Amino acid sequence: MAQKTTLQEFESVFPKLEKVLLEAAESYKLPTQALDWYKKSLQVNAVGGKCNRGMSVPDSVSLLLGRALTEDEYFQAATLGWMTELLQAFFLVSDDIMDSSITRRGKPCWYRQEGVGMIAINDAFMLETAIYTLLKKFFRSHPRYVDFLEIFHEVTFQTEIGQLCDLLTAPEDVVDLDNFSMEKYRFIVVYKTAYYSFYLPVALALYQLDLATPENLKQAENILIPLGEYFQVQDDYLDNFGLPEHIGKIGTDIMDNKCSWLVNQALAIVTPEQRRILEENYGRKDSAKEAVVKKLYDDLKLEQRYRDYEESIVADLRAQIDRIDEAKGLKKGVFEAFLGKIYKRSK
Amino acid sequence: MAQKTTLQEFESVFPKLEKVLLEAAESYKLPTQALDWYKKSLQVNAVGGKCNRGMSVPDSVSLLLGRALTEDEYFQAATLGWMTELLQAFFLVSDDIMDSSITRRGKPCWYRQEGVGMIAINDAFMLETAIYTLLKKFFRSHPRYVDFLEIFHEVTFQTEIGQLCDLLTAPEDVVDLDNFSMEKYRFIVVYKTAYYSFYLPVALALYQLDLATPENLKQAENILIPLGEYFQVQDDYLDNFGLPEHIGKIGTDIMDNKCSWLVNQALAIVTPEQRRILEENYGRKDSAKEAVVKKLYDDLKLEQRYRDYEESIVADLRAQIDRIDEAKGLKKGVFEAFLGKIYKRSK
Repeated sequence: MAQKTTLQEFESVFPKLEKVLLEAAESYKLPTQALDWYKKSLQVNAVGGKCNRGMSVPDSVSLLLGRALTEDEYFQAATLGWMTELLQAFFLVSDDIMDSSITRRGKPCWYRQEGVGMIAINDAFMLETAIYTLLKKFFRSHPRYVDFLEIFHEVTFQTEIGQLCDLLTAPEDVVDLDNFSMEKYRFIVVYKTAYYSFYLPVALALYQLDLATPENLKQAENILIPLGEYFQVQDDYLDNFGLPEHIGKIGTDIMDNKCSWLVNQALAIVTPEQRRILEENYGRKDSAKEAVVKKLYDDLKLEQRYRDYEESIVADLRAQIDRIDEAKGLKKGVFEAFLGKIYKRSK
Repeated sequence: MAQKTTLQEFESVFPKLEKVLLEAAESYKLPTQALDWYKKSLQVNAVGGKCNRGMSVPDSVSLLLGRALTEDEYFQAATLGWMTELLQAFFLVSDDIMDSSITRRGKPCWYRQEGVGMIAINDAFMLETAIYTLLKKFFRSHPRYVDFLEIFHEVTFQTEIGQLCDLLTAPEDVVDLDNFSMEKYRFIVVYKTAYYSFYLPVALALYQLDLATPENLKQAENILIPLGEYFQVQDDYLDNFGLPEHIGKIGTDIMDNKCSWLVNQALAIVTPEQRRILEENYGRKDSAKEAVVKKLYDDLKLEQRYRDYEESIVADLRAQIDRIDEAKGLKKGVFEAFLGKIYKRSK
């Protein structure tokens, strides 16, 4: 069984990458005040998360090789992992502005911190650009260098169209349930989350080992995208039915007018009378109205509906993993590891 | 003498590029509402400017070849030119948010248009991503494909550190003239403007023709960066001393607390009494205070100071152009064309 990386081990790589990024800025003689700002933005925005996406790169590389990694292999894989974390940081810093979010990881969002404001937009850009600085520094002579560049561009585009669709479907201030549909829900989830969170780390691992044949990439995509969808459905379920002491926050999807799996499921089965109740109470910053929606979700037995969905999707995913062709170096274990972390999670 | 492209000819290429970009989004089955939004953002933000940067790519290619371009050469060069316009659109859409700007090209800034708001941040990202979609579509088999990718990344990073330094040096709401210096001024101008506006188009032209030797790129950079600095100094000069009927706007640099060439020149030669006047009147949204600064600029003879600067820098640039080594395909005419467009411009 391949070794699993720890957050501590993964985080220990970051200072080396930060050094390279700061040196790139210093090479242009960026004034000290701006250099210190960039350093702080990297620390606050790139470091301090759970790093699930980032750590899944070295974990996948290790599962593909079927052994623990050498120091050099680990450094490469963790560097690619940190690029997925930088990509996520770029999205989170800017999404928080677009969504008027208040806190992130228990602290005020970056744009709400003292003296930051809209400079956060440029900071987000610089988090994205850091990916390409690191790729050039550490992967320029890698045989799949162009593929690394292209997959980051493609996944960035996919995430952006997912975010665009999300912003247009569920504006915070206009409640219109006609805007919602399972089709749009799936589009948003797949593009805004699944590609960068699930497909990207495994694709990077395959590229690092030069195992990224079109067949292997396609097999990985075919499993990881539905898996990412399942993960997000679960997230939506936990927002309402999870325990705040487990999920570490109080869910606000109903008040925030989110195009959540739950509201889409509700819309598919409501009576006209229940639809009216939903129309009148969804997406309002009013906890009494939120309670009405929560009661409706209970009446509609959405918790059981979720459990049925979970059993069915997990059975599908297991069957698909079982059918994987390992002849060209892909390993079932990579996907089993993802599924194992997600199935029946409560946080 | 090589032919010069016209705005009409250059703009006639855009629909073909727009089609490719929309098809890329459609290939992911982006819902219609979001597709229409993307199309509108491209139209409003990428098209409608003067396209000086974009047109300088085909002009430079033509000057390098010493002849008019074939249809295919023109399409390639104009496509690269449109990528510089997309890069600029990405920066302008986001800078307008960061600077709380009101209008752009005579219309409300994109983020201030009906229903847009902070979605403009994601739209800016998508303008940037469009560059890489087009590069992949049209230049994937070009021998300098990797160089194209890398130069866009590098120039993006340079522009972002320039913007960061600008935002930290001249926040709109905190007036502190100690923050200003000619050193910081030069840093901001060179990185925020000169690289993407002057160096990038010529570098792209050299790459297109596979003439981008390290020597040619270095010679281009050594002239185009000071030339870009001169262009921005001129812009700052015109903001105060230009005629509104020529420059098409009423200058607001004094009221906006801009780290302008004029205020930096003033700071270098003021008496302590004049410095006090500047401290008390610069960067205030008050036209009486603005008039006091304008009067001080006249007392300090900044107009003459600018004219002296212009003659000196233009003499330097001409001497440098004259020394260009054309042995490896670089042409003096490329730089003469840039200088000719800029020298003694009044708009």
